[in-house]
Amino acid sequence: MNLPTIPNINEEIRIQAAERQIQLTKPTGSMGRLEELSIDIAGMTGVIAPELKKRSVFLMAADHGIAREGVSPYPTEVTPQMVMNFLNHGAAINVLTKQSRSDVVIVDIGVNYDFPDLPGLIRRKVAKGTANMLHKEAMTIDQAEEAIQIGMDVLNQAADNGLQMAATGEMGIGNTTSAAAITAVLCGKQPAEVTGRGTGLDDVGLARKVAIIEQVLKNRKPDVNDPMDILCKIGGLEIAGMAGVTIAAASRRIPLVMDGLISTAAAALADTLVPGVRNYLIAGHRSPEIGHKYLLEKLGKYPLLQLDMRVGEGTGAALAFQLVDAANNILRDMATFESAGVSNC
Amino acid sequence: MNLPTIPNINEEIRIQAAERQIQLTKPTGSMGRLEELSIDIAGMTGVIAPELKKRSVFLMAADHGIAREGVSPYPTEVTPQMVMNFLNHGAAINVLTKQSRSDVVIVDIGVNYDFPDLPGLIRRKVAKGTANMLHKEAMTIDQAEEAIQIGMDVLNQAADNGLQMAATGEMGIGNTTSAAAITAVLCGKQPAEVTGRGTGLDDVGLARKVAIIEQVLKNRKPDVNDPMDILCKIGGLEIAGMAGVTIAAASRRIPLVMDGLISTAAAALADTLVPGVRNYLIAGHRSPEIGHKYLLEKLGKYPLLQLDMRVGEGTGAALAFQLVDAANNILRDMATFESAGVSNC
Repeated sequence: MNLPTIPNINEEIRIQAAERQIQLTKPTGSMGRLEELSIDIAGMTGVIAPELKKRSVFLMAADHGIAREGVSPYPTEVTPQMVMNFLNHGAAINVLTKQSRSDVVIVDIGVNYDFPDLPGLIRRKVAKGTANMLHKEAMTIDQAEEAIQIGMDVLNQAADNGLQMAATGEMGIGNTTSAAAITAVLCGKQPAEVTGRGTGLDDVGLARKVAIIEQVLKNRKPDVNDPMDILCKIGGLEIAGMAGVTIAAASRRIPLVMDGLISTAAAALADTLVPGVRNYLIAGHRSPEIGHKYLLEKLGKYPLLQLDMRVGEGTGAALAFQLVDAANNILRDMATFESAGVSNC
Repeated sequence: MNLPTIPNINEEIRIQAAERQIQLTKPTGSMGRLEELSIDIAGMTGVIAPELKKRSVFLMAADHGIAREGVSPYPTEVTPQMVMNFLNHGAAINVLTKQSRSDVVIVDIGVNYDFPDLPGLIRRKVAKGTANMLHKEAMTIDQAEEAIQIGMDVLNQAADNGLQMAATGEMGIGNTTSAAAITAVLCGKQPAEVTGRGTGLDDVGLARKVAIIEQVLKNRKPDVNDPMDILCKIGGLEIAGMAGVTIAAASRRIPLVMDGLISTAAAALADTLVPGVRNYLIAGHRSPEIGHKYLLEKLGKYPLLQLDMRVGEGTGAALAFQLVDAANNILRDMATFESAGVSNC
């Protein structure tokens, strides 16, 4: 597997963007997070206030062997059912990408179901889900590398066709269990500190999920200093795929908006695999999954939205696309004190 | 002054909206604040998931006599200069309303400047700014009533023309001083607890602003139980106007999105003047002005955005319009478990 290098941020354009911000007809700093965001995007893209019109949510779907341990209130057949729902435009991500004028790129990277050829579905199945990581490693190194490569391929193809902004999203019953386990390892936390209710576990279910993650970590002993070891032992095929999307986006200077716990776990792995990835990341929102904040802290990112959303699919990122637009529009379209004849202090 | 009564929320439609939310193909409650918002809007409008296409920010501009005490780093001529900037589409509110496909209704309700007839400017000047409330009451009861009536008139005219969602915004050098004083009285707080840096005071300027508000409250002694007394003694013409807009919106079942400290102070006064107004209010964002959170708590509202924005003008509300759209779009356009053939838990 050949991993790309990540270009440096364009500091010159970043400074020019910051200088323009203070000339706009508003008190300095008064657009808050959106000012910082516009400056970051200038540094990422090398363009002041770009119109990021071509944007896609890369939605990777896969199943998880650990789901057999009852870590989700939903049955595993929901994974392929929701893929069909995505293709039929009935899911939350379809509604939010329509509103934010973005595409959804739907990839079967490991669903335990034989899809026929369907318009809009990219069939790149590595395996019919991961193995049950309670008993063996979730995937082989070959599978992990293949899944990362698929993510990079999909992103690079979109980039060749003019993609300007990306997000990662996922579907996979059981995947908050994998993401929480990854978070515990990457952030040096106990499973109980990073494990949430996923799609809606009750207290008993949550305690069970924590106990299973504890046992998984004892059984698998992932090496904190080896992201591929973490990915193989306790990861998911969609998580590997999203890591690939994230790496390729950064390598192409394309801002990547992270969604919730699982998307951010993939981004944190990507950043550990390839230094510099974090410079191209934007935190779309903060999930109520309790581990998410530690991943965001580790990446040095502050979330744009905090709406207690926990749908996944890339929904928080798709909603945040509009805040990215607002940040760029402000920097591009506002008058300056000089041009508007407004007195500055 | 005849104040309208506020209709009750439509509880039946509200319940129907809540019942529909749990049938959609996502874990129950997983759209978080946006689910609650969609249900609230159904109750306000009596329609499940309305398309609120006709929406306007009512931007009231006025000057403040207290500005002569040096409570802002900006000179008072910025008020009319920014009105011109609004009319020329160069301000932050112009950029954000363009993005959210909304109108800006610009009202000179008390600017200390003689505007000529200008396209887009509603000239309803009550006075050339308030009196200096350090030395006398800011306005007479007749002026306060006239300003409220103007706000109601402007909103009602827009409602007659099909308005479906409203927001309030303001421009007026010195108006965070008035709003902080109102907040202290309405929320039972000391001036130091509710006074912020406005457009960007330094520590010395902030201490001075707090001391001036303390002296204003000692000199004026507004009656906490009498919102008109508060408005006359320590209010602003644009604050009275925004209170009128807010009251009329609620009376017409039109959801009103509040902006920051000043807009919310006006809404809190409106809710005190006319019971039930709060049922039609949505908190667009939370401002870093430290008094804002107390006003939101008093009204029982949780802000949609927390981006450290402090521009005013209605910018936080205009940005939140898109989250209102997202909430309604989700409820209207998502598939149900039954229609999509997805297993529920």
